[in-house]
Amino acid sequence: MSTLWKSRYAVRTLGVKSSAIRELLKVTQRPEIISFAGGLPAPDVFPVKRFEEACHKVLTEHGAQALQYGATEGYEPLREMIANRMARYGIFAKAENVLITSGSQQALDLIGKLLINPGDRVLVEAPTYLGALQAFDVYGAQYVSVPVDDDGLLTAHLETSLRSGPKFMYVLPNFQNPAGVTLSAQRRHDLIMLADKYGIPIIEDDPYGQLRYEGEHLTPLVVLDRENLRRDDGFTLGNVIYLSTFSKTLAPGIRLAWMVAPDDVISKLVQLKQGADLHTSTFNQFVAYEVARDGFLDEHVRLIRQVYRERRDVMLQALETFFPPEVTWTHPKGGLFLWATMPDGTDCQALFRAALAENVAFVPGDSFYANNGHEGGRHMRLNFSFSQPEQIREGIRRLSIAVKMQLRSTHVTV
Amino acid sequence: MSTLWKSRYAVRTLGVKSSAIRELLKVTQRPEIISFAGGLPAPDVFPVKRFEEACHKVLTEHGAQALQYGATEGYEPLREMIANRMARYGIFAKAENVLITSGSQQALDLIGKLLINPGDRVLVEAPTYLGALQAFDVYGAQYVSVPVDDDGLLTAHLETSLRSGPKFMYVLPNFQNPAGVTLSAQRRHDLIMLADKYGIPIIEDDPYGQLRYEGEHLTPLVVLDRENLRRDDGFTLGNVIYLSTFSKTLAPGIRLAWMVAPDDVISKLVQLKQGADLHTSTFNQFVAYEVARDGFLDEHVRLIRQVYRERRDVMLQALETFFPPEVTWTHPKGGLFLWATMPDGTDCQALFRAALAENVAFVPGDSFYANNGHEGGRHMRLNFSFSQPEQIREGIRRLSIAVKMQLRSTHVTV
Repeated sequence: MSTLWKSRYAVRTLGVKSSAIRELLKVTQRPEIISFAGGLPAPDVFPVKRFEEACHKVLTEHGAQALQYGATEGYEPLREMIANRMARYGIFAKAENVLITSGSQQALDLIGKLLINPGDRVLVEAPTYLGALQAFDVYGAQYVSVPVDDDGLLTAHLETSLRSGPKFMYVLPNFQNPAGVTLSAQRRHDLIMLADKYGIPIIEDDPYGQLRYEGEHLTPLVVLDRENLRRDDGFTLGNVIYLSTFSKTLAPGIRLAWMVAPDDVISKLVQLKQGADLHTSTFNQFVAYEVARDGFLDEHVRLIRQVYRERRDVMLQALETFFPPEVTWTHPKGGLFLWATMPDGTDCQALFRAALAENVAFVPGDSFYANNGHEGGRHMRLNFSFSQPEQIREGIRRLSIAVKMQLRSTHVTV
Repeated sequence: MSTLWKSRYAVRTLGVKSSAIRELLKVTQRPEIISFAGGLPAPDVFPVKRFEEACHKVLTEHGAQALQYGATEGYEPLREMIANRMARYGIFAKAENVLITSGSQQALDLIGKLLINPGDRVLVEAPTYLGALQAFDVYGAQYVSVPVDDDGLLTAHLETSLRSGPKFMYVLPNFQNPAGVTLSAQRRHDLIMLADKYGIPIIEDDPYGQLRYEGEHLTPLVVLDRENLRRDDGFTLGNVIYLSTFSKTLAPGIRLAWMVAPDDVISKLVQLKQGADLHTSTFNQFVAYEVARDGFLDEHVRLIRQVYRERRDVMLQALETFFPPEVTWTHPKGGLFLWATMPDGTDCQALFRAALAENVAFVPGDSFYANNGHEGGRHMRLNFSFSQPEQIREGIRRLSIAVKMQLRSTHVTV
């Protein structure tokens, strides 16, 4: 064993262990398995042809620039485009307040780097996005968890947790990963008021905001915050850092996302990003700009909404058809995930193994809880974006067999 | 001011300031300026046509996979290709010991994350690569500097520094950035022996190794280390982490590099990378693989060597022609940079301003020293890869005017 290295690992990395989900996703890649485990977009809607045209155009017209080093902040026309698109949702950011990141995961890492001293508390939803926990863990974060229900974060429980002095809150208001729930308009308002009262900033992670399949768009926290602060001066002030991404609307393989933050925060983040990877691929930024421009992105998002809405409906229908009445699940109005809850006492890790035996996979819920996740033992995250409708139906049928077996065995052992 | 945020910045970021070079490179982008400041490859040798063919092939044949999420470790065929290429230089790594990173800058960040506790000492060359200092600074590194001469790191000075207990050494053995010097065969041997004696691991950063314009290839440290340890079992053990990149041989805009490390180290690095950006762009990895394959990369590296050798020779010739005898400079056998030294008492920041007035730019040497860089005040880093030969000659002529003025004014004030 290479003890020379092990004895030198920094304290921050000692708790970092291979994520359960990582190991698990390897297993679920066997071709005979129908996987609801990954958070993968549907490859059949990737705009491959448009990417090809964009690559051709970029290399023909801007080859020397697109293959060269670029600015840490990102490609200016892409930042402008992002700022213009966000303005539609009332997010009036200047391009200078937009930092292009190598996926939203990098945005989370930069936030951890910027804000977390070892031992600092971060307020997260229970459950929350696993990747955020991984990003924050390495900086020594401790967590305060606030549960969600069908209307998102339970703001009624928030005040007590805010009194414990978290460094910031990390919230996914739209079609949350993993639970698929959306923060209601009233709770958004309450959240902003409480954040202001206790002076706790917010990280608003919004990867799925554009993928709404029913109901009305709700105002982002970053906008409510500015209205509350009565600021009309663009984006120079604010208590919210807003994150979004092209991973779910164009393609995740290009690793392009962005963060929006007040002037002094963005300039600090730019410095940290420079030390982390200099800048995000110039080529990919040029290509994404060419792919997205002239209304293509809007048109493409409409297509994705249609495809994913159908898949969600097929999954909801199949759950109704096949699942026993003891199991409940969320009704996501958008996004990629649905969250199923088994009766108390169910062991979702055992259920996972039983499901694999039936050639179907999901992610056990315990992965999505800070503080070791004992609360998550009876939940499953089910992805509905990746598989074809007929696979979804068949996968839920297979899963129902494992679920029923598991319910019987739990009954027997209890 | 957004004091809400500022009051919450983590301790590690308080010392992070906008890099001088960053601000400086902005100035040097004015079109009338001939810039020797950046570390940019020549855009006229980017294999644009080959990239276009590769994009077409990847999107036509593997669109769904290339645009999707991928493994954190990287694209398997690319890792195999890298392992096979490295074997030519005696670096017998398995593909499993190769981690694809988003540029070498990310490799440096991951190393900082893995190894540096606040206050830990890192042994670096004086001068050394600025980006490494930026990457390590954020993790609270302190530095022990060992000077370089024309044969690289002065290993005769090393033992005293090793006794101070650095966590690791960071070394650029080939055509070092910024000094352009190469660690001699004898010193490589000495370095490995001392590292083994004191049990101090080595980070070997080798972005330019293939860009040698004269003399014989020297054995990488990672190979000498394995020979010293008498290990024949591939790469499972060793005291060296080896870094290299496609930025200087294909194009920096695709942000593709790699690191090679022992089994247990690589698996820890993979976990840290997962939290940092999930994985490097799948698309870019597919494209780089298609660009590089079937001998193209070798052929292309031969072309780059030819172009850069000519530019180096033009710069060396112009320095002889125009520069006063008080100034000396290194004779790099490869790479992108040359290091000029002014007489004692010269202020390279003042010289930089004088040079800008003559429409020519370089990077003042003080940026490349740990511990505030007072030692670097009389040095300039000159890049010879980016500009055309006629620009190089004209730029050095302009720079000689600024240098002579500066020498006179130094004389007057002293």
